[in-house]
Amino acid sequence: MAASMSAPFTLAIDGMGGDRAPDMIVRGLNIAAERHPDAKFLLVGDEARLNPLLARYKRARGACTVRHAPDVITNDLKPTQALRMRGTSMRMAIDAVAAGEASGVVSAGNTGALLTLAKIIIKTLPGIDRPAMAGIAPSARGDVVMLDLGANVQCDVRNLVEFAVMGEVFARTVLGLPSPSLGVLNVGSEEQKGLEMLRQTADLLRESHIAAQFHGFVEGHDIGAGTVDVVVTDGFTGNIALKTGEGALRLVGDMLKQVFRSSFSSRIAYLLARPALERLREWLDPSRYNGAVFVGLNGVVVKSHGGTDANGFAHAVDVGMDMVVHHFNDRIREGLARMSGLAAIKAAGAAPAVPAADSGLATV
Amino acid sequence: MAASMSAPFTLAIDGMGGDRAPDMIVRGLNIAAERHPDAKFLLVGDEARLNPLLARYKRARGACTVRHAPDVITNDLKPTQALRMRGTSMRMAIDAVAAGEASGVVSAGNTGALLTLAKIIIKTLPGIDRPAMAGIAPSARGDVVMLDLGANVQCDVRNLVEFAVMGEVFARTVLGLPSPSLGVLNVGSEEQKGLEMLRQTADLLRESHIAAQFHGFVEGHDIGAGTVDVVVTDGFTGNIALKTGEGALRLVGDMLKQVFRSSFSSRIAYLLARPALERLREWLDPSRYNGAVFVGLNGVVVKSHGGTDANGFAHAVDVGMDMVVHHFNDRIREGLARMSGLAAIKAAGAAPAVPAADSGLATV
Repeated sequence: MAASMSAPFTLAIDGMGGDRAPDMIVRGLNIAAERHPDAKFLLVGDEARLNPLLARYKRARGACTVRHAPDVITNDLKPTQALRMRGTSMRMAIDAVAAGEASGVVSAGNTGALLTLAKIIIKTLPGIDRPAMAGIAPSARGDVVMLDLGANVQCDVRNLVEFAVMGEVFARTVLGLPSPSLGVLNVGSEEQKGLEMLRQTADLLRESHIAAQFHGFVEGHDIGAGTVDVVVTDGFTGNIALKTGEGALRLVGDMLKQVFRSSFSSRIAYLLARPALERLREWLDPSRYNGAVFVGLNGVVVKSHGGTDANGFAHAVDVGMDMVVHHFNDRIREGLARMSGLAAIKAAGAAPAVPAADSGLATV
Repeated sequence: MAASMSAPFTLAIDGMGGDRAPDMIVRGLNIAAERHPDAKFLLVGDEARLNPLLARYKRARGACTVRHAPDVITNDLKPTQALRMRGTSMRMAIDAVAAGEASGVVSAGNTGALLTLAKIIIKTLPGIDRPAMAGIAPSARGDVVMLDLGANVQCDVRNLVEFAVMGEVFARTVLGLPSPSLGVLNVGSEEQKGLEMLRQTADLLRESHIAAQFHGFVEGHDIGAGTVDVVVTDGFTGNIALKTGEGALRLVGDMLKQVFRSSFSSRIAYLLARPALERLREWLDPSRYNGAVFVGLNGVVVKSHGGTDANGFAHAVDVGMDMVVHHFNDRIREGLARMSGLAAIKAAGAAPAVPAADSGLATV
């Protein structure tokens, strides 16, 4: 399903997902089309709303083919309800990937519906037990890939090892790191600490083809420190760690605003330091980190934040394009093939993961 | 064991625990003694090192009685090894609490050893299954209590309900909040999301005497937002959330330092904004949040960060004194008595928690 480096390819776009859709979507595609003049988008949604927007955004118009979808999956819909609706923009965008019309799909809509529909329609890669949600967080030493961010609230050893394989490929293909380092998130970096399942995961990774890149256990503060390039964790812990870190960054951001409004001299100070402070703000801007990716599916599936703006959505489209161009899923197949040599991984994978769909998916 | 509001009481102090002990300890006690002129400390450790220090710090000298302990529990020692050593400063400080000579103990030493020794020597409060580690984090709306921070890497419903009771008392007695709000940390705030165990915990809290204070589920970003005063979680998740938040704060702090060094005008900006920036720095200063507390034990046990300075250690002593003065354990007994009216809690508490001591304690 992945296009070759030079071959043209199409991304299917859910035109109606997200708080400010479809306006935000079309403006985001306009930005993406400016960055990637060869980009082709299959834009799925309400024609009557999409066409007037495309009339206003020239670059988006040049890159898009519109496909009408009469329905929308709202955020309050449960995945099981979403499954029964065939004419939704999200569903029809995913159908286009399954039919081979598009190499991937980008949606800012209902996370649980996107994962459930993608699993059923696009299906998981052969050999993958559970898809995971991967995302990027800022650190002192550059971007850090973290997965799972909430697709599976409970995981077993096999799932975590697969997450490690997929996270390593993500860091190579999307971040462009030649040999990314990996860590398993735990409550202590010493070998004997934490849950038995995590120790088994670490043991398997030490025997695997990525052993040289495996750093061992990392702790919560290692995410911000950038101790490793890829942080492997279950979806419950990953979701809470991601949101706790985001909350802490927001807290300092809000406090800084107060600091620079607190007196006349600090207002002057803000003006003097503004170029550097703006760089800091941009660097920590959530829209730069927008877009979780469902990895382990038989096609590229990118989930944009529902509350994102056009820049954030354009970034999510960038991530999807990177994954197609760099043959993300082919690289995962290679990694899995090398990992399957480990007999222990099958034995370890006895207890099945509890997918979030069974208990309500984590919102990202 | 709790002293009455007016009665004098003694805190036992592990004089040899912590990276910069005993100097940092004695200087910390000097600060604490200045704040609390009535404070009495039983300072346990190597006389030959403690006495010369006390000679230099007048206020500490006036507040301290020294008890010689020949040995020290180092940070690399396992709890089981620590248990076999009877003449250590930590052990003898804990012994003083068990003997009724002191109302509580403060140590900056080995976390796992402190928890294990305290559980065995001081014992848990009647009706408490597992003690927890509680701590304070900064938020946009004031300090937030979080527990468990790593004493139990796996918990059951009964443990989480007990943590809620103890966290509520902690917020009342240490933070002075008349009616603190509580939340259970989860991957979504909707009722149907997350793990089954967390839903059962929420159901029980909704039937309990603290139902009016129970906010429901909270997510990672709610910690920094200060959505609730008390965040209840298992020790694995709590440890990772705490450290992830700390790591994110450190990341922004380091970036801000770079911002203000990046140009001549931003150096001037720093000078202009310094008073407000210093307030921000102090507010986020880890030493303000120093001191996790082991709750659920038959005495007050405060764990200071091993790497803290004298101010941080003085703050840990403050926390211990607040807990004694405000009858922390009496309030917990009252809360547990009211909670035991819930028949469901006994049924729910079937599967025992996995204490961190069995699998290596999380370091805080």
